[in-house]
Amino acid sequence: MILTVTLNTALDLTYRVRALRPHATHRVSAVAERPGGKGVNVARVLAALGHEVTVTGFAGGGTGREIRERLADTPGVLDALVPIAGATRRTIAVVDERSGDTTQLNEPGPQVTAVEWAAFQEAYAGLLGPASAVALCGSLPPGVPVGAYAGLIRAARSAGVPVLLDTDGEPLRRGVAARPDIAKPNAEELAELTGFHEPLRAARDARRRGAHAVVASLGPGGLLAHTADGHWRAAPPATVAGNPTGAGDSVVAGLLSGLVEDLAWPDRLARAVALSAATVAAPVAGEFDRPTYEEMLSQTDVSVSA
Amino acid sequence: MILTVTLNTALDLTYRVRALRPHATHRVSAVAERPGGKGVNVARVLAALGHEVTVTGFAGGGTGREIRERLADTPGVLDALVPIAGATRRTIAVVDERSGDTTQLNEPGPQVTAVEWAAFQEAYAGLLGPASAVALCGSLPPGVPVGAYAGLIRAARSAGVPVLLDTDGEPLRRGVAARPDIAKPNAEELAELTGFHEPLRAARDARRRGAHAVVASLGPGGLLAHTADGHWRAAPPATVAGNPTGAGDSVVAGLLSGLVEDLAWPDRLARAVALSAATVAAPVAGEFDRPTYEEMLSQTDVSVSA
Repeated sequence: MILTVTLNTALDLTYRVRALRPHATHRVSAVAERPGGKGVNVARVLAALGHEVTVTGFAGGGTGREIRERLADTPGVLDALVPIAGATRRTIAVVDERSGDTTQLNEPGPQVTAVEWAAFQEAYAGLLGPASAVALCGSLPPGVPVGAYAGLIRAARSAGVPVLLDTDGEPLRRGVAARPDIAKPNAEELAELTGFHEPLRAARDARRRGAHAVVASLGPGGLLAHTADGHWRAAPPATVAGNPTGAGDSVVAGLLSGLVEDLAWPDRLARAVALSAATVAAPVAGEFDRPTYEEMLSQTDVSVSA
Repeated sequence: MILTVTLNTALDLTYRVRALRPHATHRVSAVAERPGGKGVNVARVLAALGHEVTVTGFAGGGTGREIRERLADTPGVLDALVPIAGATRRTIAVVDERSGDTTQLNEPGPQVTAVEWAAFQEAYAGLLGPASAVALCGSLPPGVPVGAYAGLIRAARSAGVPVLLDTDGEPLRRGVAARPDIAKPNAEELAELTGFHEPLRAARDARRRGAHAVVASLGPGGLLAHTADGHWRAAPPATVAGNPTGAGDSVVAGLLSGLVEDLAWPDRLARAVALSAATVAAPVAGEFDRPTYEEMLSQTDVSVSA
């Protein structure tokens, strides 16, 4: 199975309103709820691709209970979340029906105690045994040490399990130094890490800092990969209109499934780009549109980069 | 005990953000959660005044479970909510720390089935037995007939239990026709009901439509009462700065506690105005500040109206 780690899971709510106006009262016309946090989104896409996935991280309070109930109804995804006393955060995406734009409100996440963090590390060590790969995804909740991902990467490497890191800021900096197999920053995160705004130069620098391979997501521009086997750019055949929420998580799912299926880098990148474009095209945020995926997969252009 | 009915209960969330900007992503710096819906707020104030209160209405889903867990921790308030399959709505108040203004997002409320509505009416009939008074508060969730409050008022009157109605629109119109002991609209609701914008004339018209007494809340202007015993205006000694959320619910608690304690109308009105002002002054929305209440109670001016 593939293991995804989401230390700051979330109950993702999407609200539709006619038009969002500060200081007014709004009737929400539709509410959608689903378990979220980057690693949970990655797991859903991996399961849809036919992989067995286990999700771990933290869950607590009424919101944590709701997440777990919904995960139990998600085929192919096994819940190995570690219980905590604090309540799992909510995120709220308010979609303005007039403009189509989204306003995001993100709760801060629960305080995690030292005892809970220790319990997680023990559970994680046990889950590495049967894992073919692991993805470490998203922000850290309060109380989890900033070097958390570095420790989890070292544990995965000791266990011989390939590990992908998708985070930002100081947890990314420390995580990259622990030598993950793949780091997947976006252009902004990569620039913040390295100080370089030119993606190829920044990716090279991130590898020098420790990542064995760097795949930078460049939004509609596709992916840039800098690996020991070569450098590639992968781009969709055309710009896809839609909602970019979850597109980065679909990239992670594409890279990770390609890794465990032992695909060559160009095939992994084509899959990641096609999944990402199919996620942007899907009517529901964070899900992917299978016909778009199949079509994009045959049309994605992967070229060797300078 | 006093019975309060909240057919559209809510999990009330308050978010603090630096400054709310449409189409941006916001970190919520603080989250507050509490059981809400007008009748639940009324119950909390009545309990704080030393009354035994039972709350009924509907609760369902993860949000309903959270409400019930929190009510179990509220001294003096007994939970007699009727379970439903749909999930209790959330309301979100987003407080802009820069301006102090609040943006409100209200979920629509769960669909109530005919079987669930019948179960509620049976539970309500049983709760009327030990009740000294009943308050019917707030909006109706989808599936509850628009004449719901009219039926509940007739049942209370048959059981000899005094009944107060606090709602708006068509449920208010039909409810008033069923002859509640007290109707408590605000100025806008009263104008919509009667077509008259002058409060005294509108209150007189609302009594002609069936309400035995009408107490109109006029915001910072206090209360206007039109009853068989006389007409009064009650106003706080000075305008109180703060958050008006829940001020109307405190008026209902003041009127209802005054009724069961057999206070004369001027004393009921003074209490209702003082509680309302003390709610505006409280740092937490919907709670009242006891020193302000005590001080306002002695200073509220109740005068006979023309």
